Amino acid sequence: MIKLCKALDAVLDNASLLESETIPLDEALNRVLAENINSKDNLPPFNKSSMDGYALKSTDTGEGQSKFKIVGSIKAGDVPRTEIKKGEAIKIMTGAAVPKGADAVIQIEKVKTCKDELEVCGKVCEGKNVLMEGEEIKKGDSVFERGTFLRPSEIGMLASLGYGRVQCYRKPKIIIITTGDELVGVDDKITEGKVRNCNEYALVALSKNLNVSVKSYGIVEDQKEKILGAVKNALEEGDIVITSGGVSVGDYDFIEDVLHEIGADIKFTSVEVKPGKPVTFATFKNKLFFGLPGNPLSVINTFEIFAAPAVKKMMGRKDVINDEFPVILEDDFKSKGDRDNYIYVNIEKKDGKYYARNTGMQSSNALFTLTRSNGVIIIKKGIKSVRAGDILNGKFIFK
Amino acid sequence: MIKLCKALDAVLDNASLLESETIPLDEALNRVLAENINSKDNLPPFNKSSMDGYALKSTDTGEGQSKFKIVGSIKAGDVPRTEIKKGEAIKIMTGAAVPKGADAVIQIEKVKTCKDELEVCGKVCEGKNVLMEGEEIKKGDSVFERGTFLRPSEIGMLASLGYGRVQCYRKPKIIIITTGDELVGVDDKITEGKVRNCNEYALVALSKNLNVSVKSYGIVEDQKEKILGAVKNALEEGDIVITSGGVSVGDYDFIEDVLHEIGADIKFTSVEVKPGKPVTFATFKNKLFFGLPGNPLSVINTFEIFAAPAVKKMMGRKDVINDEFPVILEDDFKSKGDRDNYIYVNIEKKDGKYYARNTGMQSSNALFTLTRSNGVIIIKKGIKSVRAGDILNGKFIFK
Repeated sequence: MIKLCKALDAVLDNASLLESETIPLDEALNRVLAENINSKDNLPPFNKSSMDGYALKSTDTGEGQSKFKIVGSIKAGDVPRTEIKKGEAIKIMTGAAVPKGADAVIQIEKVKTCKDELEVCGKVCEGKNVLMEGEEIKKGDSVFERGTFLRPSEIGMLASLGYGRVQCYRKPKIIIITTGDELVGVDDKITEGKVRNCNEYALVALSKNLNVSVKSYGIVEDQKEKILGAVKNALEEGDIVITSGGVSVGDYDFIEDVLHEIGADIKFTSVEVKPGKPVTFATFKNKLFFGLPGNPLSVINTFEIFAAPAVKKMMGRKDVINDEFPVILEDDFKSKGDRDNYIYVNIEKKDGKYYARNTGMQSSNALFTLTRSNGVIIIKKGIKSVRAGDILNGKFIFK
Repeated sequence: MIKLCKALDAVLDNASLLESETIPLDEALNRVLAENINSKDNLPPFNKSSMDGYALKSTDTGEGQSKFKIVGSIKAGDVPRTEIKKGEAIKIMTGAAVPKGADAVIQIEKVKTCKDELEVCGKVCEGKNVLMEGEEIKKGDSVFERGTFLRPSEIGMLASLGYGRVQCYRKPKIIIITTGDELVGVDDKITEGKVRNCNEYALVALSKNLNVSVKSYGIVEDQKEKILGAVKNALEEGDIVITSGGVSVGDYDFIEDVLHEIGADIKFTSVEVKPGKPVTFATFKNKLFFGLPGNPLSVINTFEIFAAPAVKKMMGRKDVINDEFPVILEDDFKSKGDRDNYIYVNIEKKDGKYYARNTGMQSSNALFTLTRSNGVIIIKKGIKSVRAGDILNGKFIFK
């Protein structure tokens, strides 16, 4: 049984950034850039009107009233061919290029017009309502560095810079294998000794929320040869293989045997964490293998602690570990003290502070408790009881 | 020009919960339940061993050493046919049904065995390592109420309860229409007067992150008939239609005319918000129409303020409006004071408090500023300047 922090170190040391691939921009949302992006153009690419109005020379305006001859109209997208001369103005739409000679735009709401005559009251400053060429970004400027996470704003920015395809780190492919002869399908009736397969659904959902590709091999019988075959295929097909069940000390727990037979490099088989002690982690070539326990709460807890950070690191994300923060307890909690104990709770923010409430029994099968929780608090190894009012570290779950 | 809060009220008053539909459980992640879920079984469905060990009668153990005859073995999934009698024990695997007569399981690590003889040291309490039938959930218990957001934990729970299909609120279909004769495609070279189409990419990305279905009609020319045709089709095909551009007072801003012609019920055409004043909202039958401005920062700001809450409400989510919290300014900021001013900033948490830093110019085209920001602070209408040290309300973006 190794310490939780050592186990996590072992996982992260072996989770390597995947290679990059060039993908269409519309598939790049929530991916991580694997190239530096420099601007190929000035942005805006020309002096641009930010208002509907009239473009003119600011020096033609003054304290009192000024009159102008309206010499035409420019809409967005037009190439302005006219040069504005002294005493002239041109109607201009938002987003249109400001023509030569003009250095300011006065808003349409602020002028009077009569036929081709424009009347302006007061001074219009140079540059008024004009976005200057290169004001936002200059040609050659560094815009995004390798490692940037692509949100809707970055996707829009890349489009405006002409990057219809971008280089991103590949997302890992996760293969899910569910073991356990006690499992029946979700649509089956429960007969004696059987329970329904819920881990497969939970693991697929957890993977989907990480924006990776995921494939489930379904339920594999508790027979060593069958599990061996499935794990071999999975390590061939996926970047990360996740099994549930078969990792304890029972007569039908074949995962460790299978890993030995394959020649995988087993890093740990048991961690000082509750729920989820019998968790196995191994590497095979550049692939990662997580053997998670069979109990539903243990499965989710160990996925979140070990698999999720590995996935994020492999796809280049910087938010590998979710932030912990101090949480004030509103209830007493007990722990055995032999492991770091993850207690699922409801965390509420009041006046800028976080408070945690008990949401029910914490046995490793208590998935129902998890559905009533939005967070977790961690009672460190060595501590056997904490009281209402105590402050522990906690975090939100599924973030 | 109406107040921001009135505009948001108008949007939310018209955003009605969509009808429900029955979908496979593996498509229900991040959807909202439209039915109450009661358990059809006890969970666990039988007295279940939580450990690998030996099942026995707790009354057969005592202070000292007790010996048992091992009468067989039960693995997970087996139907236990044996009844345990005084002095007998049976080997049992984690997850297996505890046979009649036995009321406790002692862990395999804590016993000695020799052939079919088991030696136990000390008292084993009644119920030790046994999860009792119905301990987690009893048949008929309410598990989830209509309105529950389905995370991986709820998906797992529904699987274990035998819900292979669930009733969820339908997710809205969003149609995106991009207008502007100044726009060229992302792969095109910029020629004079032209800029690349980035709003379409940003709007599709914003929609995808809300887990809705989204379709883009691409760029539609600034011709009234073409925009009319596109908007008509979109209102037929989608639940929500979002346009960008064409909503100001320019000669080629046809959105308002088109809405009048269709007979849509225009709720507002201008809101006291910066960036994004010229934002139009209308309803047509039970469909929603958002006419967003053409500037990239305005588009994202108004999508987040108006469209995102509408989408969330329609699909049954309760987190319709993102939480605001107090943010301490680290820089001075200016505002015109004529509207609620959304300033994009970088928010950092230090010692439990949030601090905001300037990330650049805030003009409505300044998408680059947004890419350097993770949050927004709001300078309320009437306030013209705020100073470092002042506290304003703010929130994280893209949450």
